Amino acid sequence: MKEYFNTIPHVKYEGPKSKNPMAFKYYDAEKVILGKPMKEHLPFAMAWWHNLCAEGTDMFGSGTTDKSFDAEKGTMEHAKAKVDAGFEFMVKLGISYFCFHDVDLIPEGDTIAESNKRLDEIGDYIKEKMDATGIKCLWGTANMFSNPRFMNGAGSTNSADVYCYAAAQIKKALDLTVKLGGRGYVFWGGREGYETLLNTDVKFEQENIANLMHMAVEYGRSIGFEGDFLIEPKPKEPMKHQYDFDASTAIGFLRQYGLDKDFKMNIEANHATLAGHTFQHELRISAINGMLGSIDANQGDMLLGWDTDEFPFDVYEATLCMYEVLKAGGITGGFNFDSKTRRPSNSYEDMFNGYILGMDTFALGLIKAAALIEDGRLDEFVSDKYKSFNEGIGKKIREKKTSLAELAAYAEEMGAPESPGSGKQEYLEGVVNNVLFS
Amino acid sequence: MKEYFNTIPHVKYEGPKSKNPMAFKYYDAEKVILGKPMKEHLPFAMAWWHNLCAEGTDMFGSGTTDKSFDAEKGTMEHAKAKVDAGFEFMVKLGISYFCFHDVDLIPEGDTIAESNKRLDEIGDYIKEKMDATGIKCLWGTANMFSNPRFMNGAGSTNSADVYCYAAAQIKKALDLTVKLGGRGYVFWGGREGYETLLNTDVKFEQENIANLMHMAVEYGRSIGFEGDFLIEPKPKEPMKHQYDFDASTAIGFLRQYGLDKDFKMNIEANHATLAGHTFQHELRISAINGMLGSIDANQGDMLLGWDTDEFPFDVYEATLCMYEVLKAGGITGGFNFDSKTRRPSNSYEDMFNGYILGMDTFALGLIKAAALIEDGRLDEFVSDKYKSFNEGIGKKIREKKTSLAELAAYAEEMGAPESPGSGKQEYLEGVVNNVLFS
Amino acid sequence: MKEYFNTIPHVKYEGPKSKNPMAFKYYDAEKVILGKPMKEHLPFAMAWWHNLCAEGTDMFGSGTTDKSFDAEKGTMEHAKAKVDAGFEFMVKLGISYFCFHDVDLIPEGDTIAESNKRLDEIGDYIKEKMDATGIKCLWGTANMFSNPRFMNGAGSTNSADVYCYAAAQIKKALDLTVKLGGRGYVFWGGREGYETLLNTDVKFEQENIANLMHMAVEYGRSIGFEGDFLIEPKPKEPMKHQYDFDASTAIGFLRQYGLDKDFKMNIEANHATLAGHTFQHELRISAINGMLGSIDANQGDMLLGWDTDEFPFDVYEATLCMYEVLKAGGITGGFNFDSKTRRPSNSYEDMFNGYILGMDTFALGLIKAAALIEDGRLDEFVSDKYKSFNEGIGKKIREKKTSLAELAAYAEEMGAPESPGSGKQEYLEGVVNNVLFS
Amino acid sequence: MKEYFNTIPHVKYEGPKSKNPMAFKYYDAEKVILGKPMKEHLPFAMAWWHNLCAEGTDMFGSGTTDKSFDAEKGTMEHAKAKVDAGFEFMVKLGISYFCFHDVDLIPEGDTIAESNKRLDEIGDYIKEKMDATGIKCLWGTANMFSNPRFMNGAGSTNSADVYCYAAAQIKKALDLTVKLGGRGYVFWGGREGYETLLNTDVKFEQENIANLMHMAVEYGRSIGFEGDFLIEPKPKEPMKHQYDFDASTAIGFLRQYGLDKDFKMNIEANHATLAGHTFQHELRISAINGMLGSIDANQGDMLLGWDTDEFPFDVYEATLCMYEVLKAGGITGGFNFDSKTRRPSNSYEDMFNGYILGMDTFALGLIKAAALIEDGRLDEFVSDKYKSFNEGIGKKIREKKTSLAELAAYAEEMGAPESPGSGKQEYLEGVVNNVLFS
Repeated sequence: MKEYFNTIPHVKYEGPKSKNPMAFKYYDAEKVILGKPMKEHLPFAMAWWHNLCAEGTDMFGSGTTDKSFDAEKGTMEHAKAKVDAGFEFMVKLGISYFCFHDVDLIPEGDTIAESNKRLDEIGDYIKEKMDATGIKCLWGTANMFSNPRFMNGAGSTNSADVYCYAAAQIKKALDLTVKLGGRGYVFWGGREGYETLLNTDVKFEQENIANLMHMAVEYGRSIGFEGDFLIEPKPKEPMKHQYDFDASTAIGFLRQYGLDKDFKMNIEANHATLAGHTFQHELRISAINGMLGSIDANQGDMLLGWDTDEFPFDVYEATLCMYEVLKAGGITGGFNFDSKTRRPSNSYEDMFNGYILGMDTFALGLIKAAALIEDGRLDEFVSDKYKSFNEGIGKKIREKKTSLAELAAYAEEMGAPESPGSGKQEYLEGVVNNVLFS
Repeated sequence: MKEYFNTIPHVKYEGPKSKNPMAFKYYDAEKVILGKPMKEHLPFAMAWWHNLCAEGTDMFGSGTTDKSFDAEKGTMEHAKAKVDAGFEFMVKLGISYFCFHDVDLIPEGDTIAESNKRLDEIGDYIKEKMDATGIKCLWGTANMFSNPRFMNGAGSTNSADVYCYAAAQIKKALDLTVKLGGRGYVFWGGREGYETLLNTDVKFEQENIANLMHMAVEYGRSIGFEGDFLIEPKPKEPMKHQYDFDASTAIGFLRQYGLDKDFKMNIEANHATLAGHTFQHELRISAINGMLGSIDANQGDMLLGWDTDEFPFDVYEATLCMYEVLKAGGITGGFNFDSKTRRPSNSYEDMFNGYILGMDTFALGLIKAAALIEDGRLDEFVSDKYKSFNEGIGKKIREKKTSLAELAAYAEEMGAPESPGSGKQEYLEGVVNNVLFS
Repeated sequence: MKEYFNTIPHVKYEGPKSKNPMAFKYYDAEKVILGKPMKEHLPFAMAWWHNLCAEGTDMFGSGTTDKSFDAEKGTMEHAKAKVDAGFEFMVKLGISYFCFHDVDLIPEGDTIAESNKRLDEIGDYIKEKMDATGIKCLWGTANMFSNPRFMNGAGSTNSADVYCYAAAQIKKALDLTVKLGGRGYVFWGGREGYETLLNTDVKFEQENIANLMHMAVEYGRSIGFEGDFLIEPKPKEPMKHQYDFDASTAIGFLRQYGLDKDFKMNIEANHATLAGHTFQHELRISAINGMLGSIDANQGDMLLGWDTDEFPFDVYEATLCMYEVLKAGGITGGFNFDSKTRRPSNSYEDMFNGYILGMDTFALGLIKAAALIEDGRLDEFVSDKYKSFNEGIGKKIREKKTSLAELAAYAEEMGAPESPGSGKQEYLEGVVNNVLFS
Repeated sequence: MKEYFNTIPHVKYEGPKSKNPMAFKYYDAEKVILGKPMKEHLPFAMAWWHNLCAEGTDMFGSGTTDKSFDAEKGTMEHAKAKVDAGFEFMVKLGISYFCFHDVDLIPEGDTIAESNKRLDEIGDYIKEKMDATGIKCLWGTANMFSNPRFMNGAGSTNSADVYCYAAAQIKKALDLTVKLGGRGYVFWGGREGYETLLNTDVKFEQENIANLMHMAVEYGRSIGFEGDFLIEPKPKEPMKHQYDFDASTAIGFLRQYGLDKDFKMNIEANHATLAGHTFQHELRISAINGMLGSIDANQGDMLLGWDTDEFPFDVYEATLCMYEVLKAGGITGGFNFDSKTRRPSNSYEDMFNGYILGMDTFALGLIKAAALIEDGRLDEFVSDKYKSFNEGIGKKIREKKTSLAELAAYAEEMGAPESPGSGKQEYLEGVVNNVLFS
């Protein structure tokens, strides 16, 4: 078997003292944290598109990194070379999952029939590799945004024919996801939104999207798909405005159209901040609605207004993410690195550097989140803060056994209430730093 | 009766040629547009707080404008002087409505009983003025954000006592709104959110808010309030994050907690843009959900990240707003100028300039929106755009009489679909400019 | 001669009443405004890249618009077809100028020698067309950002070889600009900046850029180039941070390195807002520093954080732009439409719609700016506002004939100063609307 | 002597294992880092305004924290109580410096004479305390933004009288700074900018500001002030746009008006990000221009668009700050906590929590920055990256001994250049995490 990354050995855990760039300093797969080995807390996935397809193009420049893997692009040989390279990459890093769009895997055909045939072929090839390595599929999806036919949307398109084409892609992507045993199926609505309201019937478009999702659920369940359907909220880019703006919006949409039993959220850090939220916020909103499904692990640049999909680096963010995940009792999905090396990071080595950075960052996040929970000071503060609702009038409020008139009468009697008490943000932030840097 | 604005005459319509700063150039109350006089399309309201209370303080400076109206601040004489000045102001401008928070009207008492007594007194005084002038109340609300006791929220506070105090304020504000015949009652959740998730139980707090709203609805209906309850979405400021982030979030919340039958949206332009949306977007989302209730007419600064509450000046925005309102068949509420003169605009004259600017801007918006509808080119484009869903497979999709498998089969047969057709944004924008500048 | 846009006739002025989409409603080339015909106020230019090269790709999708012009891409036939199409386009719209990057004109060669040969050939071809039509070159530039070799910058690159390659491109682009009689030569520093300060020596890079500019000026002047060198400020995108952040930064840089005699600014609306400024601000800063050279006419989306390069549509912005230009006594450069049709606007017709929108918007801007000046109310207000500096202590301050001690003594004697007087923003905005909508 | 913070003991270093909220975990004043004790690396200062004056008001609410210190506000007794409390606070925390505005110290008088008299009195009182404790003054400044007279600016005002008043305040603040031995004098131009360009003569205003600064320098030097004059860049808030937008803009201004010999930058983290830059960027720009004077240590919220002035918490930011400071050879100023407790942090204890958080964060930043330097991997990468400029054509470029023609000839000969080499951002970020979390 051809080796693509032949200068790079298996990446091992060597601990924080190691200066070996090709070693994990924090990610120790078997290390047990809160009763489970790290690798179970952190089912990492490789994103086919960024890692095996994207070459560093941006809006002002062409590719910097060669991802031909010695094959001619646009051929099935190249498609297979990507499979080979991808599995070599995952094995060397000890990554157990991958995620894919249909057209990441193959050169898209001129017709759906042609594409589907290729997907069958590549699916078989991938399946073999999976069996040989034990690597699994985290989730699949259909790319319904790159082809010009989707310029006005897929589920939200104005063209019934394009809508059918999207449906056909979803059907096949579901077939393939089931074939590869994927744990989830994602809808990323990058073109589901508008460029200008001057030419858009929002209600019509949202109804059509919901309709398409219902058909997808029905079909998926009919072929034995038992995993989660996932929406990945993103507010904008490529469109001016996307319907899945954020978790609250997406959850509201799912409830409105009766899709909430089958769908969860796939939360991406960079999308959260583009929507004006912290990553933690989007995770929390999903979790308290019982919809925290999966995570796209990356990091945006808070001073840039587009999706930079950087490898996660900020241990604060990773810690708060893992804190939410641990509090939610874990996730049904995994941690997909929807991350790409920066355009000037144009070598194979950089691909490994990126994943090592991301995996170590989340490993640190897990370690520190567990430490925060064990430390107990945050939990204790929060629990104490709301205690006035545990008895008396507070308890009646929680139990819905009172009325505005009763509360008003209580207030009249009480006179001016005491201060609700300090929120102690600075103290709590000090606790976080203390746990992170001890 | 004392006259406060004695240098300023009644503001009349003099048409676009007038150079009189104290005349309307576009707002002609009796002019009929699409079958209704302007004044019925545009039930303008004066916001008590900005116009009669706020003196131009900002985070870095004290007041520049004197709003003592020759009385000592903090007294009921001052409260009454504000009523006198406010009605003189509304009469001179031909404004038919006002909006208020409880504590805009009176110096807040040390106890709820004291405040309520003062509210009774001022309420009677206002009622008299209303009867004398025909001016009406658009909506009332309780200020549950300025007093330090609400530093951790009102409905979302951690203190049961503070929660009761808020309930008592709501009760009284509802009483007063009913007494003054208000068309709506607003919840502005400025402190309902968090400063940091480290100390916040989001689910607990949201449940408490919903609970409080249920009690308010129950009480309001029991005393004969038949108007709309309104949520005014705002993403942030003063808090780091507020629960009523935007229309989608607020509507989702209302549906989740069974409040959607009694509540609508009060959409503010400046809040829309702080949330990353256009004003038009928030209006559209509210309208297609049957929840476009009322409008806070102002304008933010797209390059500043806080609520500037400027008087509306941009005729594009006003036109698109009125376009949505006309398409929605009007609103049950009105157009409240939640707007303040800029800090260096520190004279009585500026107060009038602000309202003249705002009223003329919305009058132009109405005229231009009606012209857009009469022009017909926008409507025609949109209607034509989606026509593929009027028959054949498109019709089956709309009628939910198909399945993923059927659509996929259709797609296989069809081959590659044709382009969905140009969105023609530049053409449509040209139409807008053509209608605006003709 | 092949006609590419054969369905589209010459675009004529038909006035605001016209409903013909392929007519100007406001741009009337010969109409005299403030003593000059519109066409002289508004030397419009076509941008080769957006109009003849770009096909609607974005970061999430491939091209939607066919710009092959019936030739095979990557060939000199295609390069010439673009020239033919471009001149037909300009003639049909009555546009008198074009702007180009070297690699817009030809398929880039593998070596500089190969590229240069092709540039000679295409240059001759263009020259012929220019002579035949009277169309002129506004400015030229070298694309030193798309090729992967520039991934770490051109003038700011870490590779001396890449630096030399950039120098060679500049030399040739200057040659070509002179050959085509260009009025200006632009530096667009899209890769001149950094991705992370962790790997960047800012001082070293800035010195190298300045050095390269000095060599370019020296060479340009040696071959008879008498026009302006132009910097086009942009804060970010594609890089995380670019050195020409905004006009103030670029002007400071030019002064620091002694380049201010030869350089002016090329101000782009969309870049201004990405930097947190209004378009008007960047124009004003350039003008008061004597550096307002040329304008890239487009419009960004204030809610999106990347360069959308939309065709200008907002007449407010265009009016304030033309107001600054008229106040500055005009510009030495022109108005280049660095604008592209939105991705779903994928027809030839849309290309014309875009330009008609842009030209009409700036025509309206010119008409309205002239009207504002003729109206006189803005000027009068500003002149009156600062009048306290025309005499007494104010005059001494302006003439630098005083000291802190004298001013302090004056202040002690004066007691508390009177209010500086209202800024009357709302009134002035009302004046603007009155002039715009009369 | 009255003790205000009697529940709080002297704050001591107890190391990372300590759970005592009133202990430093990282700030160990005497610990030697790179040859100097921490306290010399980190001359921390208390900001009089936030710590002793501000009570938690925001635009939507009144104060939450009592800063009366048992005296009646608006009296000289209160002014002295603040001095007592302030020195007790600094002593308990081991802080060696303070910063002040004139009106932080006293209730402002109705005339400059009255204010000055009070400043003399409080100055004497402070001086006594300084002598007794060894605490020093880092810098002073005049508040020329809060009083309504400055609503149109101070140096940029349209009123010559207001300009004189500002001059008088500067004179006295300089006198007081010299009396207290301050190391610097700051200009914070919060009102030096505009609300709208419609009413603003930018050039006139900038000239007046420069003029005022020249007079201040002349006066300051005449009374023996040998420290730095400092500009504190801020892009906006309270104004729509401020002239000292960022370091580049301020440095350009200083050079343009010949003020660069006397002035340096006072860089604030939160202002950097409001301007679209990282904190590190602003420090780097200042440092490479020889103008890194002093630092306002705080932290903004990247998702909020106003100055939150939070206590610094992010150790990444603090580390990169200290990295720039160490690389620059230290600063002549100090680290002033221009930070305030969050509004709901309303107790004396929170004031201490805030400073402990801030001091510990910068102590960690110093420790980690020194470790990054000692680690050497970052330096090594950067030095290696630019090595092609150390010899051959690269050396000629650096020495300015070449020309465009020579470089072009070199490029022709060379053919296509090799890749400039990976920027290795992910690797370098991994190094940072490795150093931070080891």
